[in-house]
Amino acid sequence: MLDICLLGTGGMMPLPNRWLTSLMTRLNGSSLLIDCGEGTQIAIREKGWSVHPIDVICFTHYHGDHISGLPGLLLSMGNSDRTEPVVMIGPKGLERVVNALRVIAPELPFEIIFKEITGAEETFHINGYVIKAFRVSHNITCYGYSICVPRAGKFNLDKASENNVPQKYWSRLQKGEIIEEAGIRFTPEMVLGEARKGIKVTYCTDTRPVPSIVENASNSDLFICEGMYGEKGMEEKAIAHKHMTFKEAATLAMQAEVRELWLTHYSPSLIRPDEYVQEARDIFGNTKTAKDGKSNTLLFDEN
Amino acid sequence: MLDICLLGTGGMMPLPNRWLTSLMTRLNGSSLLIDCGEGTQIAIREKGWSVHPIDVICFTHYHGDHISGLPGLLLSMGNSDRTEPVVMIGPKGLERVVNALRVIAPELPFEIIFKEITGAEETFHINGYVIKAFRVSHNITCYGYSICVPRAGKFNLDKASENNVPQKYWSRLQKGEIIEEAGIRFTPEMVLGEARKGIKVTYCTDTRPVPSIVENASNSDLFICEGMYGEKGMEEKAIAHKHMTFKEAATLAMQAEVRELWLTHYSPSLIRPDEYVQEARDIFGNTKTAKDGKSNTLLFDEN
Repeated sequence: MLDICLLGTGGMMPLPNRWLTSLMTRLNGSSLLIDCGEGTQIAIREKGWSVHPIDVICFTHYHGDHISGLPGLLLSMGNSDRTEPVVMIGPKGLERVVNALRVIAPELPFEIIFKEITGAEETFHINGYVIKAFRVSHNITCYGYSICVPRAGKFNLDKASENNVPQKYWSRLQKGEIIEEAGIRFTPEMVLGEARKGIKVTYCTDTRPVPSIVENASNSDLFICEGMYGEKGMEEKAIAHKHMTFKEAATLAMQAEVRELWLTHYSPSLIRPDEYVQEARDIFGNTKTAKDGKSNTLLFDEN
Repeated sequence: MLDICLLGTGGMMPLPNRWLTSLMTRLNGSSLLIDCGEGTQIAIREKGWSVHPIDVICFTHYHGDHISGLPGLLLSMGNSDRTEPVVMIGPKGLERVVNALRVIAPELPFEIIFKEITGAEETFHINGYVIKAFRVSHNITCYGYSICVPRAGKFNLDKASENNVPQKYWSRLQKGEIIEEAGIRFTPEMVLGEARKGIKVTYCTDTRPVPSIVENASNSDLFICEGMYGEKGMEEKAIAHKHMTFKEAATLAMQAEVRELWLTHYSPSLIRPDEYVQEARDIFGNTKTAKDGKSNTLLFDEN
């Protein structure tokens, strides 16, 4: 199961009672963070989660509201006596930007491993997470992320017999081990049926609606998408600033056939997002206007 | 009159409901900020004050909890369409540190003027503020600040007559103007009595108690001083980390003969500062444990 928490829902600047947009997930003791604006570490504490087990930090892009909280977070992770390395994933410039910000956090008790994304898409396998970055369309290079937790197939007795797998290995293979005996290699695929549907969360802010989002959000259990503007008449502003309206986000959710849409990354001028959600729901029924700290535990489907 | 607000009272890391320690003042439409940790811009908004008129930002030192909020503050000041330059004052390294942090705030609509302090003391006159920085004793170079609003003497008829100042200039001279007429120079001192007591606030965090603090805080209307530790038995920790206990701060206040002491910069482990204030009050009666947003309006004495 995957715990997720949308730590904040603001865009542009943090406000009293509205943290900047950031997503945190927990999977088997390993936490992942997407974006880290000013105040994100406080939002984590407010939620009662810990900064210590954050193993991966992904950045959509390097506008201040998405990374200004990083030095403080790193200092707090250091103060929590973390020594395990932290992987950072982000667009080109990652190491340069992070190292510049570290002028005020020069000494940390853990290593940072940088993974700069160069192409239109890139996939990373870390601690059970399959993290796919995909380019979107903002006024600087920006990526969306799909976070997947894959699920192996069921044990298949016929396959195990056909492949002559000794019974003593069934359980270990089922758990994902690869076993070699007398020159024969036994792999999990030899005893398992087709991979089952896993868990998929897609996160996407600071972009116009583009086809890469529909492709990558396809069939997500949860699609977290920016809705910078809810009010009528903001379409041109959304185009000019390379952001989206609630209706544009809902259209993406409908096209990608996701299960649920959470709107976030509200403009500071958008005081009550709820007032504008109906038009989005007319396009995609299961649309929710997220609030800071909105969380859920996503489980594998029963089957 | 001088409005002051202690925006936050935390040390080391921001907490839910406790912003990092930072002082903001307002004088005739010109605001001054001392330190800017993560979340300071939110604390300003929460207080209902504006980031726009901040003309001076002073830094005590460059540990993360005292400057991590700067890029976000600068971006918000830029978004508020400020175009007037901002003066920054701080220890050696100011320009290097600020410019590194500006990797995420590279384009601002206003200029930054850097004033690096090099000696043990330095005084700056800006917008009616007299700002005196004085070196204190932390594990990196650190300064305290006295913010003074000077007050001219009363109009003195005898002096004006003795100095043969024409009556038509009295009012302008009283307001501080210098006037030249037919080769004769008339100055405010020629019509005014001795300068009267102004307003003085002294701010001091991240230091052991040292004589420069007593000297510079001397006769302050308000002395804002770190009290990192309140509990008994923390004296050694205070020495090791170059911080102060409540009692040490109170002793400085007593020695400097200030009017009022506000304790701040509490350790994250210090949950209820109030519980430990009595011992400090036994040393200096007018000791207060500040809370976030504590503010006051300081007036010239009646005389």
